[in-house]
Amino acid sequence: MSLGSCPMGGPVLVVGSVALDSVRTPFGEVTNVLGGAASYASVSASFFTPVRMVAVVGEDFPETHVAGFARRGIDLTGLRRATGKTFRWSGYYDYDLNQAHTRSTELNVFETFRPELPEPYRHSPCVFLANIDPMLQLFVLDQVRRPHLVACDTMNYWIANSREKVLEVLARVDIALMNDAEARQLSGEGNLIAAARHILNAGPGAVIVKKGEHGATMFSRDSYFTAPGYPLEEVRDPTGAGDTFAGGLVGYLARCGETDDSAIRRAIICGSVMASFAVENFSLDRLLSLSPEEIAERYHEIRQMTDFGRL
Amino acid sequence: MSLGSCPMGGPVLVVGSVALDSVRTPFGEVTNVLGGAASYASVSASFFTPVRMVAVVGEDFPETHVAGFARRGIDLTGLRRATGKTFRWSGYYDYDLNQAHTRSTELNVFETFRPELPEPYRHSPCVFLANIDPMLQLFVLDQVRRPHLVACDTMNYWIANSREKVLEVLARVDIALMNDAEARQLSGEGNLIAAARHILNAGPGAVIVKKGEHGATMFSRDSYFTAPGYPLEEVRDPTGAGDTFAGGLVGYLARCGETDDSAIRRAIICGSVMASFAVENFSLDRLLSLSPEEIAERYHEIRQMTDFGRL
Repeated sequence: MSLGSCPMGGPVLVVGSVALDSVRTPFGEVTNVLGGAASYASVSASFFTPVRMVAVVGEDFPETHVAGFARRGIDLTGLRRATGKTFRWSGYYDYDLNQAHTRSTELNVFETFRPELPEPYRHSPCVFLANIDPMLQLFVLDQVRRPHLVACDTMNYWIANSREKVLEVLARVDIALMNDAEARQLSGEGNLIAAARHILNAGPGAVIVKKGEHGATMFSRDSYFTAPGYPLEEVRDPTGAGDTFAGGLVGYLARCGETDDSAIRRAIICGSVMASFAVENFSLDRLLSLSPEEIAERYHEIRQMTDFGRL
Repeated sequence: MSLGSCPMGGPVLVVGSVALDSVRTPFGEVTNVLGGAASYASVSASFFTPVRMVAVVGEDFPETHVAGFARRGIDLTGLRRATGKTFRWSGYYDYDLNQAHTRSTELNVFETFRPELPEPYRHSPCVFLANIDPMLQLFVLDQVRRPHLVACDTMNYWIANSREKVLEVLARVDIALMNDAEARQLSGEGNLIAAARHILNAGPGAVIVKKGEHGATMFSRDSYFTAPGYPLEEVRDPTGAGDTFAGGLVGYLARCGETDDSAIRRAIICGSVMASFAVENFSLDRLLSLSPEEIAERYHEIRQMTDFGRL
């Protein structure tokens, strides 16, 4: 399988939400901290390749967060500051950290978000469409000129309420990301292999099913790859894990300039590594303090913990 | 890590239940078919090394099943036929195939089972103590002379009701097998890494946590290994999967004559392969029709589906 190629070190365009999150887990509580799919994905991808972010924030969005993105070298031409308040999500997790419980969602400036791409962004070789209204994902794709690689995420809300549009997006992407429940919901198949086959028929060259602590599985027409979750003794806040995974995945593919089966496998491990760091602390705290050496070390550790010889 | 060694091709002693099961799953229903932990583990191990079985059946136990064991070359000197009925288990699974629901358990001849070892069995280099009363597991260990490798399984019932005896067993085994819920229950730790560390402190050189469709994870003092579940499109009956896993694991270790970290990793994959076949059909039907080539092929497939390169 080969999905085309990204020019070596080509920038990744990330479109999604930037939010102020209030989160409670069994290990602590934070209020109005940096969150949002585009934040997690962009910072994660920035460890591998240049990133261009398209998102909107309100007048209340702290300058320190903008400065944090800038320190990661993220191109913020596409980060619009609109009149009103930033998108806010409030939720909590009980001991089953795979299950987020939403207390409230305030769309605020995100309600009228139109991801218009600045002219240079229209020539982005790699695109990650984070989980937003599939109408907006299509709107972005209409603006990008012949990208080499497009990956998208989605969620149960859009599958239930905009199913046709989700399928339209899937027909135009190379890699579709979703969690196992969403794969079952979208396909109507209880078995994950059958679900993946169903989704592949909708168009993408690869489907990557995220399974939280159980890792991730990639299905394509001629390959199957399963990556374990990195074993963590302390998961403080799982918010953003999936977006961080996607950012690491797409960032790595853009950096290495290949999208064959072997590159996608390595990219999935990069995504897992990034996600494993993200959940070690609240908000983007751990990601923003990460070093490339730590990433390489954990990648190597996953190689060791999955290695076994011939029969 | 090295847990000692089994002489090359040395026989495995398997002690546990032989049963007549009645099982309903979403994919079918069977009545009074061959079941029991010792049946699954023995047949599974028999693909790798000679097996000696210690178990008891009643007068109603069909000769065809005895003949089936014999065809697999299993030494049945230790299979006692007692007056009364064979142990019977009746249960069902809904769509969550990880969760068995018991309808009834009739211990019958199993109620007074005393696993007395025939003299030659007392010199077995490798021992697998399937899930039975830990008092009986200890009784077996008292009879075996200096085994090279002992592995044991247990279950929630014994952890709740005979905790001290379970810990006594763990202090005398090399490899402890249990599922993730049991590891949490035994250790009182919610996190699996913490749980494994706690259990390792009780004595075994390695703890292998079975996670159903999510595979298995091995923890030792200086190593960590995670094996994926083999992806199956159709799981018809998960009964016996854990026992089949254990049989493949111990059988492989006995056959290769090594119990270092690298051998245990390969053995875990052998266990996964065997379990993946077992669940494809009811009872031991699939195991009894299996060929060594099919085992080697699926082992290779798992190598391919977990393989990824350096960063």
